[in-house]
Amino acid sequence: MFTMKKEEKESKKVEKENTDQLKAEIKALRGRLMAQQQAVREKGLPIIVLVEGWAAAGKGSLINELISEIDPRNYNVTSPVITPEAESRYPFLYPYARAIPENGKIMFYDSGWMEDCVRKYLHRDITKEEYKKRVRAVNEFERQLRDGGYILLKLFVDISEKEQRKRIAALRESFETEWRVSLDDMWQMHEYKLFRDEYENFMDKTGKVIPWHPVDGSKRTLAARDALKLLVEQIDRALEEGRYVGKPFKENFPLLKMPKLAEVDLSPSLTDEEYKKELKKLQSHLHELHNVIYRKKIPVILCYEGWDAAGKGGNIRRIARPLDPRGFDVMPIASPEPHEKNRQYLWRFWTRLPRSGHVCIFDRTWYGRVMVERLEGFCAEDDWKRAYNEINEFERQLTDWGAVVLKFWIHIDQDTQLQRFTDRQNTPEKAWKLTEEDWRNREKWPQYEEAIDEMLEKTSTENAPWFIIESNDKKYARIKALRIVIDALEKACEERLA
Amino acid sequence: MFTMKKEEKESKKVEKENTDQLKAEIKALRGRLMAQQQAVREKGLPIIVLVEGWAAAGKGSLINELISEIDPRNYNVTSPVITPEAESRYPFLYPYARAIPENGKIMFYDSGWMEDCVRKYLHRDITKEEYKKRVRAVNEFERQLRDGGYILLKLFVDISEKEQRKRIAALRESFETEWRVSLDDMWQMHEYKLFRDEYENFMDKTGKVIPWHPVDGSKRTLAARDALKLLVEQIDRALEEGRYVGKPFKENFPLLKMPKLAEVDLSPSLTDEEYKKELKKLQSHLHELHNVIYRKKIPVILCYEGWDAAGKGGNIRRIARPLDPRGFDVMPIASPEPHEKNRQYLWRFWTRLPRSGHVCIFDRTWYGRVMVERLEGFCAEDDWKRAYNEINEFERQLTDWGAVVLKFWIHIDQDTQLQRFTDRQNTPEKAWKLTEEDWRNREKWPQYEEAIDEMLEKTSTENAPWFIIESNDKKYARIKALRIVIDALEKACEERLA
Repeated sequence: MFTMKKEEKESKKVEKENTDQLKAEIKALRGRLMAQQQAVREKGLPIIVLVEGWAAAGKGSLINELISEIDPRNYNVTSPVITPEAESRYPFLYPYARAIPENGKIMFYDSGWMEDCVRKYLHRDITKEEYKKRVRAVNEFERQLRDGGYILLKLFVDISEKEQRKRIAALRESFETEWRVSLDDMWQMHEYKLFRDEYENFMDKTGKVIPWHPVDGSKRTLAARDALKLLVEQIDRALEEGRYVGKPFKENFPLLKMPKLAEVDLSPSLTDEEYKKELKKLQSHLHELHNVIYRKKIPVILCYEGWDAAGKGGNIRRIARPLDPRGFDVMPIASPEPHEKNRQYLWRFWTRLPRSGHVCIFDRTWYGRVMVERLEGFCAEDDWKRAYNEINEFERQLTDWGAVVLKFWIHIDQDTQLQRFTDRQNTPEKAWKLTEEDWRNREKWPQYEEAIDEMLEKTSTENAPWFIIESNDKKYARIKALRIVIDALEKACEERLA
Repeated sequence: MFTMKKEEKESKKVEKENTDQLKAEIKALRGRLMAQQQAVREKGLPIIVLVEGWAAAGKGSLINELISEIDPRNYNVTSPVITPEAESRYPFLYPYARAIPENGKIMFYDSGWMEDCVRKYLHRDITKEEYKKRVRAVNEFERQLRDGGYILLKLFVDISEKEQRKRIAALRESFETEWRVSLDDMWQMHEYKLFRDEYENFMDKTGKVIPWHPVDGSKRTLAARDALKLLVEQIDRALEEGRYVGKPFKENFPLLKMPKLAEVDLSPSLTDEEYKKELKKLQSHLHELHNVIYRKKIPVILCYEGWDAAGKGGNIRRIARPLDPRGFDVMPIASPEPHEKNRQYLWRFWTRLPRSGHVCIFDRTWYGRVMVERLEGFCAEDDWKRAYNEINEFERQLTDWGAVVLKFWIHIDQDTQLQRFTDRQNTPEKAWKLTEEDWRNREKWPQYEEAIDEMLEKTSTENAPWFIIESNDKKYARIKALRIVIDALEKACEERLA
């Protein structure tokens, strides 16, 4: 069981120390932090400092102490607003994932996912079951950051019940500061013990991957000294050891059995007549379903991957056609921009998630990690090997949030690809779709096939399944994808309350 | 006076035409649009299609018709949510400016700044005076986009009062569609004539720079044909004529008289003792003011420009120190990233604006346009010459929103710079702050001085003034900047209601 007793006792001892000595220590630590900045930038080390703690514990002041000697170009402070559950249209980790720093920068979170989880749970905004899922998601999120080379320092600024009462009373006395005390804060003050138990429980449950560091908030300088020391030491260690690359690991996900690509029968086809009739019927059905999706606020995420020239674009357009454009987005995923490459690889997908009730169609996805990034050596071997599980975790977080997640592999054979490439080459309006890279990728067909087989095997989960769409006949492929989407959405609409 | 009568009559005639012919026309136009895509991408042409119009006029369907043959990688649809005035914490153009497309892409706005202005005005959320300011801002915004090379097609989907009543009634009949009709829509239906007058008035006032194109929404295919035709023709014209670069122009802004840099007396200084005493006093005062700013929801934008090694960073830190970190951000501005360079140059500042009640300190700013971009040839001559007025307009939009905008030129002489450069070179912890570029820039001191003098002369407005901060003595500079900030914030706090 996690407990703060020991640290409290220790810090009490320290408190008696001479204040001047404390100030000198702080100054020295700040100097070291200032000196570390250059190396942090050069080595592209991303640093997250999560400052959680009691209302009125002085989280803001502490951050101010930490940043005072850091060049403004090297850090940012984010205060994610805890949105009432009923108003939030995104997964609960969304605001925190959005805010992660890029390489070489420090991001301070002025409270974050801990407060969000604990407060919502104690307010009964979320059930015990949901709370557990969130705790799991937090552990996954933190581990993924660490494994992606992030330094993650988690501080909990602790004050006693008596101290909190005193500070809240002081804040409420002045007109200029009373607005700082929210009703939530008052409630916490009256339920101090309830919160202490839950904070400790949360730290217990989330302290195994990345440890928590309680900081005594009863004296500002003391807290500053302790936090600075932790930060400076962690940075020193990271600079010495070099950027961390997490090892692959295996977790149990409920995997669906997938066939090897070579086993897939690509002969199915439709006549023009069958196609037109079905297309019209299915699109009209999808159009109606979109209304229900919107009304029931179900987020829908459709993932398209496939061989070059397999017909992804046309397939996507047939799905998009009957949707109300104010309720869907197509997200084309190209190679990452510098500001994207400078962050954990899932960041550019976190930031593109749809609001609940909206449909997002990803034209290529996070699976680039285990295909092109693997084969072109854009990431380390451990990185893509770890990614199977990281992606399964990410997708489970999405379905836990309530999303329908469907993944399509648009499949053709090599002959068909060659025929379509040649056709593109010979048709001026289509020529732009064909690049040198497409030809190069084609040469690596066997390596890609191996990678895709492994991907399908390891990431087709019950909650976020893969579907192989036979697309030698594009008409057949479009109808098949439409049917799968409709089936899944119908099921979701039946299961959910309005 | 703007009127839709003529177009309505014309389209009535067309309506009688054979539907099959219409469909063939649409198909042909879609083919042309499909073919244009490649050139649009290659030439990096950014295209905005604004689709405004009546509730239930079929804006969404129309957009769907327009996008049906466009590759999903080439377009996006945005539906900016019209936030109730009381909840909005950003300038009213903010959501629209955020969404502008990058070069080579098309962005469809599913209603936008017109609806936002007209509805808020008719709801009496904003005064007549504010409405006028917004109309002016819209004209400025649209012109700036056009002058920055954007194609801007503005459509108004028109239906008659009778038609609207019919459609709204139909939507309300089904459980699956009734939620689509908002109270606002009902109100519009009952006040059709009031809205028609105001729509026409708005189009009249904003149709001179970029014309409005009314589209008859009574028949879906007809609207699609007309809109497609307009879009295809505009793209053709732009592809033929090449990317437009707007000409510089002169507008009257209430300019403050600024001294030439060469005239500035750089001798003022403070003793350590004076400095420490003042610093403590002023910082404590600023700390208190920050509470008021926060409570009164006043946005504060502090702009820092200055010579390399003038002491911007240290000056900023002295301002930031007493602020609550959850209420301010320092935005370091480096050279633009690719996704920033691919958009109108003010975009990366629009997207960094603070929420109301927050302080944003820009460490370098949009003035890069008339300094480094001018001198290094990163933009055309017309671009930077036009920028003085564009920037004045942008800043007036910020102060119209309620922001306090203060701009500091941190000033030193050449000898002091050399001394500080040498000092940095000889101090290992500071060496990272000095780059080759700093030395190169130093060689161009005279050209920079000329550019800066021109900038100070042309952009120091009453609402967003420049202050030259003598920084040969950094202590003096810090105290001066603090005093200016405090004075301005005190004034703002006195003037504003809570």
